[in-house]
Amino acid sequence: MIKDHFTVAVVGCGIVGGGTAKILHEQASDIRNRTGIDFRLKYVCDIRFDNARALGLPESLFVTDYKTVCGDPEVDVVVELIGGKTLAKSVIEEALKSGKSVVTANKALLAAHGTELFGLARENGAAVAFEASCVGGVPIIRTLYDGLLANNINSFIGIINGTCNYILSAMISEKKDYDTVLKEAQKAGLAEADPTLDVTGHDSAHKLAILSSLAFSTDTDLSAIPVEGIDRLDLFDINMADEMGYTVKLLAIAQKTEDGISLCVRPSFIKKDHPLAWVSGSFNAVSVYANNLGHSMYYGQGAGSLPTASAVVSDIISLALGYKETRFDTLRIWPDKNKRLPQLPLDRYSSRYYLRLDVEDKTGVLAQVTHILGKNKIGITEAVQKDPQPQRPVSLVLTTHRTTEAAVRQAAGELRRIPEISKVITLSIVDEAE
Amino acid sequence: MIKDHFTVAVVGCGIVGGGTAKILHEQASDIRNRTGIDFRLKYVCDIRFDNARALGLPESLFVTDYKTVCGDPEVDVVVELIGGKTLAKSVIEEALKSGKSVVTANKALLAAHGTELFGLARENGAAVAFEASCVGGVPIIRTLYDGLLANNINSFIGIINGTCNYILSAMISEKKDYDTVLKEAQKAGLAEADPTLDVTGHDSAHKLAILSSLAFSTDTDLSAIPVEGIDRLDLFDINMADEMGYTVKLLAIAQKTEDGISLCVRPSFIKKDHPLAWVSGSFNAVSVYANNLGHSMYYGQGAGSLPTASAVVSDIISLALGYKETRFDTLRIWPDKNKRLPQLPLDRYSSRYYLRLDVEDKTGVLAQVTHILGKNKIGITEAVQKDPQPQRPVSLVLTTHRTTEAAVRQAAGELRRIPEISKVITLSIVDEAE
Repeated sequence: MIKDHFTVAVVGCGIVGGGTAKILHEQASDIRNRTGIDFRLKYVCDIRFDNARALGLPESLFVTDYKTVCGDPEVDVVVELIGGKTLAKSVIEEALKSGKSVVTANKALLAAHGTELFGLARENGAAVAFEASCVGGVPIIRTLYDGLLANNINSFIGIINGTCNYILSAMISEKKDYDTVLKEAQKAGLAEADPTLDVTGHDSAHKLAILSSLAFSTDTDLSAIPVEGIDRLDLFDINMADEMGYTVKLLAIAQKTEDGISLCVRPSFIKKDHPLAWVSGSFNAVSVYANNLGHSMYYGQGAGSLPTASAVVSDIISLALGYKETRFDTLRIWPDKNKRLPQLPLDRYSSRYYLRLDVEDKTGVLAQVTHILGKNKIGITEAVQKDPQPQRPVSLVLTTHRTTEAAVRQAAGELRRIPEISKVITLSIVDEAE
Repeated sequence: MIKDHFTVAVVGCGIVGGGTAKILHEQASDIRNRTGIDFRLKYVCDIRFDNARALGLPESLFVTDYKTVCGDPEVDVVVELIGGKTLAKSVIEEALKSGKSVVTANKALLAAHGTELFGLARENGAAVAFEASCVGGVPIIRTLYDGLLANNINSFIGIINGTCNYILSAMISEKKDYDTVLKEAQKAGLAEADPTLDVTGHDSAHKLAILSSLAFSTDTDLSAIPVEGIDRLDLFDINMADEMGYTVKLLAIAQKTEDGISLCVRPSFIKKDHPLAWVSGSFNAVSVYANNLGHSMYYGQGAGSLPTASAVVSDIISLALGYKETRFDTLRIWPDKNKRLPQLPLDRYSSRYYLRLDVEDKTGVLAQVTHILGKNKIGITEAVQKDPQPQRPVSLVLTTHRTTEAAVRQAAGELRRIPEISKVITLSIVDEAE
């Protein structure tokens, strides 16, 4: 079953595609020494070859039509690294229909159409491998389909967008506001010119959809994931977090309960003694809570050419070693093999909360605040009053006992109706390092 | 090739064996739902069944003779969880000779006889899986034989003994000396009654031998690994580390150079911004530096019944999914398939260093110290003088630029010959978070 050679076509020679082709071209003998298999890069398919040439890849590999690649019977695997959801989808479909397995890093496509593509792969006796779609080269997908197979996964929490984590880390360490740090990150090439997909949390949501579908063996509905980004975060709350022993991180959170799964992406407070609080700069990490193993964490670069290509090439190797037969065909953890578990509304999300109330004039207001929180059964664990800063009202900062999003939203709505309260900010708190 | 059922015998029903039997007995349907395979626990083999009974395992599984187990043609895998190097070795040999694959957590045995046992497995068409031998249920072995296969691994650093990390964490946070914390850990069941194997660093050395043999595809010589434990650490140096922005950890360090591999276990300073510095209590973690992926880290419980059993059961599942054929038979990374790379003497080890000199009377001594360091080409990055504590001489604390163990040993020897210097402590410093 295991052949002594394996022929690869890379479609899309950008950042990750270029890195993949470079590894296959330059490190082929190292990889052969480890695996016993000769990986042959036969095609680099793109419409422009500036990057391919800059990387020193031989012209003889270059083709412009992906149908040439998909139609070549010698090709064992088509590596889709174009990105986007249109041409990339056509390439993957064409490859699968030709019975070729596919490796992809395309999180947006998989989050939207993964189940459909996995089904198509099966119809055609092929497989889709996608380690590179989440957390770059860190083997988190393998952890879910292999390393933790002896476990029921109860929940996981990820810092899975490097741009957001870089911006938040800089806001904390340099005490600069969001707009300033974003501009600096863009100048340094650490944020896209249009950073929307990253900073609004939607890139994290794509990865959350993929990871949760594997962790919980379910099809997930991307559009039903509540997403909040870092673009409306106030430096004041980030500084308060720091003062109170927390760090603000953009977290992708997945919890399984008896009623279904609860998924969300949101900036949250996380206790400084939780290992995720230590993850700084552009690094990513995922903390997994499993019934037998307990808490484990996987950390590394979530983006970049060679780190992501490391995952792509690992998938190519796995395919050569029988991933299709031993994992993709056999395991029942893939979303196309499972019916969809209910995705609970955010109202059901349960955690501790941070509340910041900007209060014009405190007299008598505190009694109203306590009354509203009490009525909504929200217990207070800590209260801090910050003296007015220039042009600011008094800020009353509260942290709560565990409660639900529904209760907090209800209370926040009522608080906003008090005339002396000009602003109500709520952020959830993650503090269990199980 | 993949059967719909797989029959398991657990030999040794202690902490990990009990956990393994419990998972297979109680969670069989969950595992079948994920894997599509029916795992059948047929035997629990031991000479006493107190633990097995306490766990509610059915009496019908109990046998006392491992030859019954190894001779039963229905059994697909023998799980050796006896520990030690005598009976455990016989059980594994018997199983392999019967053509049955083996899962084991036995790090001492594998570190000493792994290459031989892998060879025996191959002769008999069987395999040995050993995820549970290092870092409990954290899939670090899989990371080396699967997730990072697209990389050359340059180095790795591990905190791979929970007892030592617990003791060091408590010494730092509670400012208590080694003996006091050890006694408390023993009372709390977090250190063995005879803690020698842990605190002298030899348990870490076993794991280092196993991890480095896979990371560098080489047979390693356990007896050639320089090992230093935490049992002679002074609270003074631990506090100094803290003051200077470091944490003291017992590190297992592996570096690959052009000349060979450099392995050691030793307490070291590690910069507080390195993720390994955050690993506290009984948690373990391994930082891996790979040519494509860069720095990645794997974190979790390194011991305990269910966390370790999680790795054992994952290995059983992998065997059912074809681990023998797709990984053990094919990959060329196993020590029995490779010749031994040279293991460099500790003299060649290169890092920054911390030096503490206890000086009776400072006048004129500093000039001699600077002279000796200069002569040995050791540059100083920081110098701190601590005022005498009760019954203590002045402590002169220095950190150095990168140098070699040979230079530091030579200098320390010369420094010890200065009559006014009563003590010289040297500890290496790890500060690169690549």
